[in-house]
Amino acid sequence: MRIALGQINTKVADFSGNCQKILTYAEEAYAQGAEMIVFPELSICGYPPLDLLTYDSFVQRNLSALQKLCEDLPKQIAAVVGFVEANPEQAGKPLYNSAAVLFNGQVIFTQAKTLLPSYDVFDEHRYFASAPSCSLFEFGGRKIGIMICEDLWAENFDEMNRGYAQDPVDIAASQGADMIISISASPFHIGKMEKRIDVVRRISRAYGIPAVYVNAVGANDSLIFDGRSMVVDAQSRVQIVCEPFSEQIYVYDEDQPGSFVLQDEDVYGDLNQALVLGIRDYLKKTGFSRVNIGLSGGIDSALAAALAVEALGPDHVHAYAMPSRFSSSHSLTDAMQLSENLGITCEEISIEPMFSAALESLKESFRDRPADVTEENIQARIRGLLLMAWSNKMGSLLITTGNKSEIAVGYCTLYGDMNGGLAVLGDLFKTEVFELCRSINRKAGYDLIPDSILTKPPSAELRPGQLDQDSLPPYEILDDILRQHLLACRSVEDITASGHDLEVVKHVIRLVEGSEYKRRQSAIVLKVSSKAFGPGRRIPIARRIYETEGIS
Amino acid sequence: MRIALGQINTKVADFSGNCQKILTYAEEAYAQGAEMIVFPELSICGYPPLDLLTYDSFVQRNLSALQKLCEDLPKQIAAVVGFVEANPEQAGKPLYNSAAVLFNGQVIFTQAKTLLPSYDVFDEHRYFASAPSCSLFEFGGRKIGIMICEDLWAENFDEMNRGYAQDPVDIAASQGADMIISISASPFHIGKMEKRIDVVRRISRAYGIPAVYVNAVGANDSLIFDGRSMVVDAQSRVQIVCEPFSEQIYVYDEDQPGSFVLQDEDVYGDLNQALVLGIRDYLKKTGFSRVNIGLSGGIDSALAAALAVEALGPDHVHAYAMPSRFSSSHSLTDAMQLSENLGITCEEISIEPMFSAALESLKESFRDRPADVTEENIQARIRGLLLMAWSNKMGSLLITTGNKSEIAVGYCTLYGDMNGGLAVLGDLFKTEVFELCRSINRKAGYDLIPDSILTKPPSAELRPGQLDQDSLPPYEILDDILRQHLLACRSVEDITASGHDLEVVKHVIRLVEGSEYKRRQSAIVLKVSSKAFGPGRRIPIARRIYETEGIS
Repeated sequence: MRIALGQINTKVADFSGNCQKILTYAEEAYAQGAEMIVFPELSICGYPPLDLLTYDSFVQRNLSALQKLCEDLPKQIAAVVGFVEANPEQAGKPLYNSAAVLFNGQVIFTQAKTLLPSYDVFDEHRYFASAPSCSLFEFGGRKIGIMICEDLWAENFDEMNRGYAQDPVDIAASQGADMIISISASPFHIGKMEKRIDVVRRISRAYGIPAVYVNAVGANDSLIFDGRSMVVDAQSRVQIVCEPFSEQIYVYDEDQPGSFVLQDEDVYGDLNQALVLGIRDYLKKTGFSRVNIGLSGGIDSALAAALAVEALGPDHVHAYAMPSRFSSSHSLTDAMQLSENLGITCEEISIEPMFSAALESLKESFRDRPADVTEENIQARIRGLLLMAWSNKMGSLLITTGNKSEIAVGYCTLYGDMNGGLAVLGDLFKTEVFELCRSINRKAGYDLIPDSILTKPPSAELRPGQLDQDSLPPYEILDDILRQHLLACRSVEDITASGHDLEVVKHVIRLVEGSEYKRRQSAIVLKVSSKAFGPGRRIPIARRIYETEGIS
Repeated sequence: MRIALGQINTKVADFSGNCQKILTYAEEAYAQGAEMIVFPELSICGYPPLDLLTYDSFVQRNLSALQKLCEDLPKQIAAVVGFVEANPEQAGKPLYNSAAVLFNGQVIFTQAKTLLPSYDVFDEHRYFASAPSCSLFEFGGRKIGIMICEDLWAENFDEMNRGYAQDPVDIAASQGADMIISISASPFHIGKMEKRIDVVRRISRAYGIPAVYVNAVGANDSLIFDGRSMVVDAQSRVQIVCEPFSEQIYVYDEDQPGSFVLQDEDVYGDLNQALVLGIRDYLKKTGFSRVNIGLSGGIDSALAAALAVEALGPDHVHAYAMPSRFSSSHSLTDAMQLSENLGITCEEISIEPMFSAALESLKESFRDRPADVTEENIQARIRGLLLMAWSNKMGSLLITTGNKSEIAVGYCTLYGDMNGGLAVLGDLFKTEVFELCRSINRKAGYDLIPDSILTKPPSAELRPGQLDQDSLPPYEILDDILRQHLLACRSVEDITASGHDLEVVKHVIRLVEGSEYKRRQSAIVLKVSSKAFGPGRRIPIARRIYETEGIS
């Protein structure tokens, strides 16, 4: 069989746009001689639709779009698409996250998703009912089982250490399937690819049948889908892995096996591509064509600007340097050098007049209270105000540049440097920010991000001589503690036992848990790790910080 | 049997504090002759713990607390408490949301929750496994079935029109239960009480057995628990409904039935009490003792201030009036009159110096672009900056005053008037804001909130002569459209069919869906309706606004 992988980038609720794309790809696949083409999970309505699913009008438009697609598709090719299936027995709901096989103007088969992930960023129990049954469809002499994303992951254990009671792949195999097709919307994170290949290979290893796995590509809000659709043959050989982070059509011919060689994971290359796609798609899908960004002369804003330029081109990135009385002279020259390297304009506006006006306005009210974090925050908030003014006036999206380490410990100002629509680096620890900058410079072949930015000690420059390391442990230590606490959910005792100083660990965890209120109001964070701030991590604000109590 | 209802206010993760409270109540119940006392769902660890449950250390502390409580409790009284049960067969997980019966120093019975709500603000499938089995425990010659919150609601249908396949009450009745005990954490919203009484009464109506229902009281982040624990006897008579919105111990004696008379719902009285409790508990549980608030002279900030004063007392509320060139003279006099009525101080600081400095700083960069919403937002953001400066300097929590109608249509400034830790009125439509003010004035017996505030046309006063009604439909119409769209998930067609102008409906829905990015970064909203902004409503930002397309 010649089967096409339709790795497309859909937009949530863009029924006509998504179907037009499916149509174009199907026609191309047919022109290339494919008998069938497979598209990602929920390709009709885009993924994840979230609470749009509570609207009957959404479900109905998705059903109408499916029907129209059926009529519009070339009659001679079968198309497997993802859609929201409404229970025919009841008016509208419950819903199923389903695959439909469209052929010759008709829906010839549907299969609902059996395993509904409810962990991390996934809440599918909120929306869908589990498939009432699993069955195979016959096409081109083959008996094919269709899996929807999580259906392949029955042997996986989630954060709550739960496996699944059923294994849809096993059910299909026991029914005599000689091929598995999987339609997925599996978000990228570092380390995910290896897991995913294992999961797809398990099918041939366990049952000796080939698998065609089609994943979504493109970003929707915080989630970045990396594509990498694949075919694994009956002998567990990976026949093809599609391009990461871009749309692709690939026609696989079972009779002409290839000689694909799997590459090792390129962590920083992947991060680079993922974040570029995340920026580009967020803008495209929200209707923005340009961003603005504040350049402090530090490494975070430098990296964010470099990624934005890669995503949008230098003409669509507007930078602003906003020095204060505490800014060092090299901050401005570094920001200007970076802008020159990136080919972007950088306006310089001092925050001093507004800062002075603010201090003067507050003087009487503050009386003789000494300067403290208040005055530091005022500076950050004036910068945030100016950046939002440019954003409003120019119709550009403000990019937020904070990294995961500082967001974790609350080393950031709400309504100040946290302002913006998209937190580009919000899921990169500071040590990863450094590594990604070095990787970008290696790729560029020169110090695109000036070396002086990479080598100076990080500082918020909100008071004289301020350095990050005065109030935080060195970033290597901080990041390791954060990784253990946030990603592995380890306790203070366990983190300390791994070789860290108890008081340092307690200090860090207190900072993390005490700054949850800031993260609750943060911009969307592009997720690139297995646990990002945002909908994948839900921590109460009003609560006791028990983590550091009674441990000595 | 004499059975005590322990309607307590717990704090998430405050194991020792919660257990101390349980202990105190149990001792009091014993002193009053009770044989058993019942506490709310997850009373050991507080509700909702959310992703703290992903930490083994959290679960272990909860288990240790249960064990210690067992030892500390009076030996002669049985206590039913809620806790996180860890699967004994596996190390730690999966978890159950369980009840334990403690008696004579031992855990004599446990029952896990069967029905796991996964809709609106609830994500229990994310955390818990469903009870593997249901059974009864015998005590004082009775055979008692224990239900955990949702277990009573098997006949309820959720937002996705799903009923449950099992009915734990029915199972208990079929096992011969002669009493049902329910431990709950059922959040308040308008109209909830009536539903809840129906649900509890169903037990005696269907099975002829009495029910003891104990609900949590107190607020945790956005959720406000109203208590109102109750006893319904075997003849479906409501024997007692405990005090709403406050802690209470009530010892019910089966042999001495009472003559309780159910009151009709007092919508605005309830809203008043709910919001006061929401403010008080958020402060207490986050460690704040005072709030600051900006008074515009408008009705929203007036109501928020009145509620804050009721919650905290006038000495703990600090008001600020921040007039600009566009403020009318009555705005200031109204704010001052309100402050006098409330007994709070109100500082007046003009935003003009900062506004002028901002315009001057941006002049060159903005060149000859005409004034637009940018300059309006700058004013709101300067006010937000000043309020946060006071918050930082004085250690007070900034209260956000926006109402649900304006948050819905995006008639609010991100990083401006949206600044703050708690959106007190974020779940009240503007028409409800008016009604609640009138209700508060009636209760006060005079115009506590000055009449001029209630009668002047709403305005943001961000440009000359600006009125809300210039860009929005009248609030009665707006609120009805919003209620249909947000609460009933109705489509543009359906809302129009209910009697609204199509273009007005489309305009409103476009505003709602186009301002999702603002709500994503909003303060916690105190939930008082069946659908509040926040974790109960999850809408993608990057998406097509399909709702208003192709309808004419």
